[in-house]
Amino acid sequence: MINQLIDNIKRTKAPIVAGLDPMLSYIPQPIKKKAFAEFGETLDGAAEAIWQFNKGIIDHTCDLIPAVKPQIAMYEQFGIPGLTAFKRTVDYSRGKGLVVIADIKRGDIGSTSAAYADGHLGKVTVGSNTFTPFGEDFVTLNPYMGSDSIDPFIKVCKQEKKGAFVLVKTSNPSSGEFQDRLIDGRPLYEWVGEKVAEWGADHMGDEYSYIGAVVGATYPEMGKILRKVMPKNYILVPGYGAQGGQGKDLVHFFNEDGLGAIVNSSRGIIAAYKQEAYRQFGEVNYAEASRAAVIDMVKDIQGALEAR
Amino acid sequence: MINQLIDNIKRTKAPIVAGLDPMLSYIPQPIKKKAFAEFGETLDGAAEAIWQFNKGIIDHTCDLIPAVKPQIAMYEQFGIPGLTAFKRTVDYSRGKGLVVIADIKRGDIGSTSAAYADGHLGKVTVGSNTFTPFGEDFVTLNPYMGSDSIDPFIKVCKQEKKGAFVLVKTSNPSSGEFQDRLIDGRPLYEWVGEKVAEWGADHMGDEYSYIGAVVGATYPEMGKILRKVMPKNYILVPGYGAQGGQGKDLVHFFNEDGLGAIVNSSRGIIAAYKQEAYRQFGEVNYAEASRAAVIDMVKDIQGALEAR
Repeated sequence: MINQLIDNIKRTKAPIVAGLDPMLSYIPQPIKKKAFAEFGETLDGAAEAIWQFNKGIIDHTCDLIPAVKPQIAMYEQFGIPGLTAFKRTVDYSRGKGLVVIADIKRGDIGSTSAAYADGHLGKVTVGSNTFTPFGEDFVTLNPYMGSDSIDPFIKVCKQEKKGAFVLVKTSNPSSGEFQDRLIDGRPLYEWVGEKVAEWGADHMGDEYSYIGAVVGATYPEMGKILRKVMPKNYILVPGYGAQGGQGKDLVHFFNEDGLGAIVNSSRGIIAAYKQEAYRQFGEVNYAEASRAAVIDMVKDIQGALEAR
Repeated sequence: MINQLIDNIKRTKAPIVAGLDPMLSYIPQPIKKKAFAEFGETLDGAAEAIWQFNKGIIDHTCDLIPAVKPQIAMYEQFGIPGLTAFKRTVDYSRGKGLVVIADIKRGDIGSTSAAYADGHLGKVTVGSNTFTPFGEDFVTLNPYMGSDSIDPFIKVCKQEKKGAFVLVKTSNPSSGEFQDRLIDGRPLYEWVGEKVAEWGADHMGDEYSYIGAVVGATYPEMGKILRKVMPKNYILVPGYGAQGGQGKDLVHFFNEDGLGAIVNSSRGIIAAYKQEAYRQFGEVNYAEASRAAVIDMVKDIQGALEAR
């Protein structure tokens, strides 16, 4: 799956991922109106609105982007109907040839991580039948519990040729509270980064490992160091746009080959029509606004990479 | 909710929680046979078997225990039907007067943590209606991303009088990989423990904070130190029984008032009928075996507390 992700990136020339993190407030009125008319102002109505919103964005951007990253919390907040919309989004995106990075940030003791890994990346067996409950391509993982919380995911990744991105240095303002603390003179995130390199060496694709890292766009200097600590691991970079990161901040996340990083934008793409720059599209054409935002984002990042 | 948890503990004299972490291999054949006859060997069939299995255990132990702790991964692995069984388990347990600690180990950037908090502990609004998507009483949280990943949960906890347990020192073998690393001479888990005390001071119940900590039974010496670091925070202690912890290891997790800790056992209770000590019950009477295991576990812990 890392090979497919890289193929998709090379084909689209777009090292970006669209974060499908819908909030009801992002969804144009006509979509909500239709969904609520059919399902009422209910969790099912919210889920239908989210799904239709996502479908529009996927349809209008899937030829330009290699991957999508649905954040499961935005679906989980609407309970079972929300999670059903998550699953529909995953299936529809994969059907369009997009790699699906499920932002789930799971991680637990071994037997529990194994259950998450089976459910999200692998298969479960019921009697004599086998099912693929969620079927994403990549997941994000939290490393706080150490190797035996990550290993069950790597095991399933090997069986299924799937992958994972492990949190190393996150994009949020207080990420430094623990991640930046010095251990033997080096910050915790570097030690985690070294572990990611070690875990990743165990499951290599053609050029890069199936196991990558999450490093926030908001910390470009740390990205520069972590790029060297994990030369063969893809870096998923959140925090572009709405969280403050810009193309010029991102060049050090990439290797010399122009690969090695994939930059996420969520609000900046999916709620583009609410921004000054794309307001002329209007809410009815929200998906065209998203397409324009994708084109501008690719230009920003490619421009910065060419200028380095 | 921390007050209700403590009331329940005082009433039952049982500072324990039953971990409802069903695996299909734990479920007696007759329950599976009936569920598969109705729903087929499908995810729905697995979910029905899990739900019926849980219901039996809840019915046979709810007068003896203050709380249950369903591990969401064990449900999530069966996709949407599995999560529906999770929700049924939460609702049924609360209906029986049990406090529900949802072991979800979530944590993300602020806006995303807010979505998890609303979905699991709070409410979401759709149009002019308000819904309680999952409605648990407590959740477990992962602290790797720092304060702004925890704050949105505390905010919802205050609104709803709900609570959370933050991972401090986990029970798994490799928990020390990062958690034990020394920062300014003290292990990371102590720094996290201090933060839990700080977060907890912001949301106090009558005797203890609504914000607690997770510290594994498998690390009793660390529990002793962390008890002092977090005097007003309840400690949720996993790792009893199957993971190796025993009553005598647990006394230091409690305060002098006999409160301050709640010990989880999962396999040891729910799959008791598979153990030598309870085999005479047979699989048909698995729930009576669970009841006997609860009684023995309470005796073990109370005995150790009285002997200290």
